[in-house]
Amino acid sequence: MDSKLIAEGLVAVEAALTNAVNSDVKALHDASHHIISSGGKRIRPQVALLTYLAAGGDDLQTAVPMAAALEMVHTATLVHDDINDHSLTRRGQITVHAKWGRTFALLTGDYLFTKVYELMAPYGTPYNAIMSDACIRLVEGETLQAAAAKAGTMDAETYKTIISRKTASLFEAGSEMGARLAGADQTVIDALIAYGHNLGLTFQIVDDILDIVGDPETMGKDVGLDLAQHRGVMAAEDSDGSAAPITTTESEDVQEMIAQLRDSGAVDIARMQAATVANRARTALEPVPDSPAKQALFDLVDLVMDRDS
Amino acid sequence: MDSKLIAEGLVAVEAALTNAVNSDVKALHDASHHIISSGGKRIRPQVALLTYLAAGGDDLQTAVPMAAALEMVHTATLVHDDINDHSLTRRGQITVHAKWGRTFALLTGDYLFTKVYELMAPYGTPYNAIMSDACIRLVEGETLQAAAAKAGTMDAETYKTIISRKTASLFEAGSEMGARLAGADQTVIDALIAYGHNLGLTFQIVDDILDIVGDPETMGKDVGLDLAQHRGVMAAEDSDGSAAPITTTESEDVQEMIAQLRDSGAVDIARMQAATVANRARTALEPVPDSPAKQALFDLVDLVMDRDS
Repeated sequence: MDSKLIAEGLVAVEAALTNAVNSDVKALHDASHHIISSGGKRIRPQVALLTYLAAGGDDLQTAVPMAAALEMVHTATLVHDDINDHSLTRRGQITVHAKWGRTFALLTGDYLFTKVYELMAPYGTPYNAIMSDACIRLVEGETLQAAAAKAGTMDAETYKTIISRKTASLFEAGSEMGARLAGADQTVIDALIAYGHNLGLTFQIVDDILDIVGDPETMGKDVGLDLAQHRGVMAAEDSDGSAAPITTTESEDVQEMIAQLRDSGAVDIARMQAATVANRARTALEPVPDSPAKQALFDLVDLVMDRDS
Repeated sequence: MDSKLIAEGLVAVEAALTNAVNSDVKALHDASHHIISSGGKRIRPQVALLTYLAAGGDDLQTAVPMAAALEMVHTATLVHDDINDHSLTRRGQITVHAKWGRTFALLTGDYLFTKVYELMAPYGTPYNAIMSDACIRLVEGETLQAAAAKAGTMDAETYKTIISRKTASLFEAGSEMGARLAGADQTVIDALIAYGHNLGLTFQIVDDILDIVGDPETMGKDVGLDLAQHRGVMAAEDSDGSAAPITTTESEDVQEMIAQLRDSGAVDIARMQAATVANRARTALEPVPDSPAKQALFDLVDLVMDRDS
């Protein structure tokens, strides 16, 4: 029952995403459709739709524009990230930056941000406050990451702050909005916020692990890119004493760094950290009444943990 | 009376702008304060505050966050524009791009956009719909400009579409929100929208003229930059038959182009076009009841027409 509902909801999210970017300005239309139609796991919309249902919502369509807006924020940041990272491929396809050039990639990212704003406007003040706060934290997290990478000051504490802001904030916002739209009471809202937060942390740690050990073909993008920019899993090394610190320089060969990290135990530590926050996500669901949607939220944790791309 | 009110309102706008960007992330804090404190004419906040008063509003503070949000949109686009234009100076100061580098400039622009969203959230749905629509049109206008420049297809019609979207849209939005916040009737709202639209067109045409004939020191930025990118006043040349078409190539010397344009009569035609839309802005105010604020809206047209920077 719920899986059919969710499937329908996700189809509606795709339609909302596609319709939102039907600009009469060809470059924006084409570049936006390019990145949106290139797929992606749509994890954030799934969080929004499932938390809405788990919180007792009975009209899933009301959550669809908000779920699409979450994916739109994520998509906008990907387009801008690819400019800063000089990435050539994303989801197995050429990046907007590589295909349309920097100017149009920058404008396309801005355009997608304005579409977040348009999709969210009908929800009124509390929802727009939640979403704007998440967007602010996301950009702050990305900036902290760029600053720490530049200064060479990435450590475990900084890494936690970064992934909490740049990734978990949007998962949290989706959960909070889903629960509120469903009219849940504060206990359930808080539970789902905690779920979203920890699922977001899990997602990012696994992402950073895949950057080191993932298969580029399965991933559809270059691996080691995050590592090359001194971010991600390498920060796990000093979270306890069991892994040898790794010193890297900008010029060091990325493959060599990957081998070092694999041998150092940093990846294993990161895997343990992912398992810990994944468990926190599961535990957070305790106050949420049992339902097929709640079960799907559990399954989503497994999916995020076990993915290979 | 009104001029004191407006002065107080503009002080409150400055405070709102500064407070909004007090991030604990140093790079965002510093870069945002750098661009915000570098001045600017604050024309958009003036439009918002004056239309609010002219429409009968009696609590100017309610319009302050919205007025600040308009300036924040504009500021965000300046930061991103300076990346694409490789500009080194802006308002007589080093650009964010030149001082902090591309990555941080891109993130700072994104951050300022998220702050627009935060400042606007309390106003609720209709205002957020107006603002998001204006932001969309702005990015579309900028993209049309970049596309026309790249394809070498800038003509008078395209130029009109571009300045209508990239500049007039925000002036219109400020006027509409100012009038609505004041509780004006639809006739006055429509009149002020038409005023904002035409004032925005005037502002941009004058801006493009100043790019050709302005004094770099008075302007506080490089002149000829827009021209170098095949945009702006040069598009006026084929608006009627009186100016000789100018063919330019990317490699042509900008000073030479400026001299050509001055001699071709394109600048004179642009001045006439500015005068025409300035007059439309004045005429649009006819249904608005007389008041010191209405007089200030007339004065603003003169200010925009006569400025030399």
